[in-house]
Amino acid sequence: MLDVALVGTGGMMPMPDRFLSSMMIRLNGRLLLVDCGEGTQVSLKKIGWGFKTIDAIVFTHYHADHISGLVGMLLAIANAGREEKIKLIGPKGLKFVVEGLLRIAQDLSFEIEYIELEEKTNINAIGLDIDFVPAVHSVKCLSYSFSLRRKGKFDAEKAKALDIPKKLWSVIQKQGVLEYNGEKYTADMVMGSERKGIKIAYCTDSRPFDELIGLASNADLLVCEGMYGENEKKNKALENKHMLFSEAAQIASMAGVKELWLTHFSPALSEPESFLTNASEIFPNTLVGYDGMSKTIYFED
Amino acid sequence: MLDVALVGTGGMMPMPDRFLSSMMIRLNGRLLLVDCGEGTQVSLKKIGWGFKTIDAIVFTHYHADHISGLVGMLLAIANAGREEKIKLIGPKGLKFVVEGLLRIAQDLSFEIEYIELEEKTNINAIGLDIDFVPAVHSVKCLSYSFSLRRKGKFDAEKAKALDIPKKLWSVIQKQGVLEYNGEKYTADMVMGSERKGIKIAYCTDSRPFDELIGLASNADLLVCEGMYGENEKKNKALENKHMLFSEAAQIASMAGVKELWLTHFSPALSEPESFLTNASEIFPNTLVGYDGMSKTIYFED
Repeated sequence: MLDVALVGTGGMMPMPDRFLSSMMIRLNGRLLLVDCGEGTQVSLKKIGWGFKTIDAIVFTHYHADHISGLVGMLLAIANAGREEKIKLIGPKGLKFVVEGLLRIAQDLSFEIEYIELEEKTNINAIGLDIDFVPAVHSVKCLSYSFSLRRKGKFDAEKAKALDIPKKLWSVIQKQGVLEYNGEKYTADMVMGSERKGIKIAYCTDSRPFDELIGLASNADLLVCEGMYGENEKKNKALENKHMLFSEAAQIASMAGVKELWLTHFSPALSEPESFLTNASEIFPNTLVGYDGMSKTIYFED
Repeated sequence: MLDVALVGTGGMMPMPDRFLSSMMIRLNGRLLLVDCGEGTQVSLKKIGWGFKTIDAIVFTHYHADHISGLVGMLLAIANAGREEKIKLIGPKGLKFVVEGLLRIAQDLSFEIEYIELEEKTNINAIGLDIDFVPAVHSVKCLSYSFSLRRKGKFDAEKAKALDIPKKLWSVIQKQGVLEYNGEKYTADMVMGSERKGIKIAYCTDSRPFDELIGLASNADLLVCEGMYGENEKKNKALENKHMLFSEAAQIASMAGVKELWLTHFSPALSEPESFLTNASEIFPNTLVGYDGMSKTIYFED
């Protein structure tokens, strides 16, 4: 199981009752933050998951509304007593951007590891596998999926067939390897195939695009931008490279996700709930996000 | 007359109910902002004075809690439709710092004029004369005064003595100069001496220091940091180069100001009002600042 929260749900600029779009995932007490606009640290204080165990901050892109809160966030993390290295992950250009911002904050109490994503590569943070595809925005921007893998079940029949005594079953599961009677056994010899894990996909800022369907495929949760609620704003969405509620819902439907949360609302969209049906008539299990909205996602069965 | 507002009153980090220390002055519809930490644009939205006429932003220093909201602020100002140049004013290093921050915001709709203050020089913004002295903090930091000067009264006796006809009195006052009957008259020939204007002094972050008394001398309002309410926190104030409430009150008393507003409270100071008497027993006309606190200051008489 893991916990997920929307730290903010606004696009463009922070509003008195809606901070900028940002998502937090908590797994085994460790935290991963996606995007960090101005005020994210304030909203995070309200959620109350703490700052010290933020091990990674992932960026979709470097428009101010997605990164302008980074310096304050790093100072808040330092103030919470962190000394461990922190991972910053994002498209190419990350180090240049962050070093510019850090001109107003010298002497952090921890190191920063910069991970600039260009080609497909295996990344993991807080125990989550991170995958990404380029989004379709006015600048280089990435959409992400965060996957918690789940090992197979212990297969007692396999263990019995190998003559491993019952009292050593827990040892091989925990240690992954067992020496017994001069033989060496590895965990894969006694485990069933990997089970379905938990996957969360996150997309903002972007027009709809095909690779997003693959990235979000069968996700437990898709958090997707819906800058505009009204279908009549299609031209604006095209022009500014954002999505309508209905377009996010089409992605959710095609990707076969379990649940869709809309986020990154235009400052002009004062009551996003009033346009929910534009999405839910296409993908019924849609929720309109709000700051502080959270959920625990469990493994199936 | 002018209006003044505390946009935020917090030190170190923005809190859910207390944004970072910042002050706004409004004169004839034009705005001058002092400091701009994370979230200042949000708090400013609540005050409702608008963004487009912010002609100048003045910085005390470049610790993150005094400038981390600048990029968002500039984008909000641009979004309000501003095309006129904006003045940024602060200690040396301003351009280097701001250019670093602007790596996440290209293409603003207006120019920036950088005014880096080193030696005494005449500066004016939105019609206010700006004076400054170096404060005593862990980095280079300035305290400011903002003065609205007030011309003398029109002196009818002088005008009569010069034989300027009554119907031309308003002309010479408005235009500052008048040609009549082949003679040239200037305004100073018919005006009384300059009257007392309005002065606001602003100090944060700093230990108390002598030059501050001169800077704030006879001010209508001193806005001064009071990081710690308790007198027992003197060692902490010394160590972190901040002030106690009582120290700010001593400055106010020695400078002979009319009114003192305390600001820049430590995040640990959850109820600053409860320590008001530590200041007011030294300087009775002390108010504990809060976000959105504002006042109109009128000329005397």
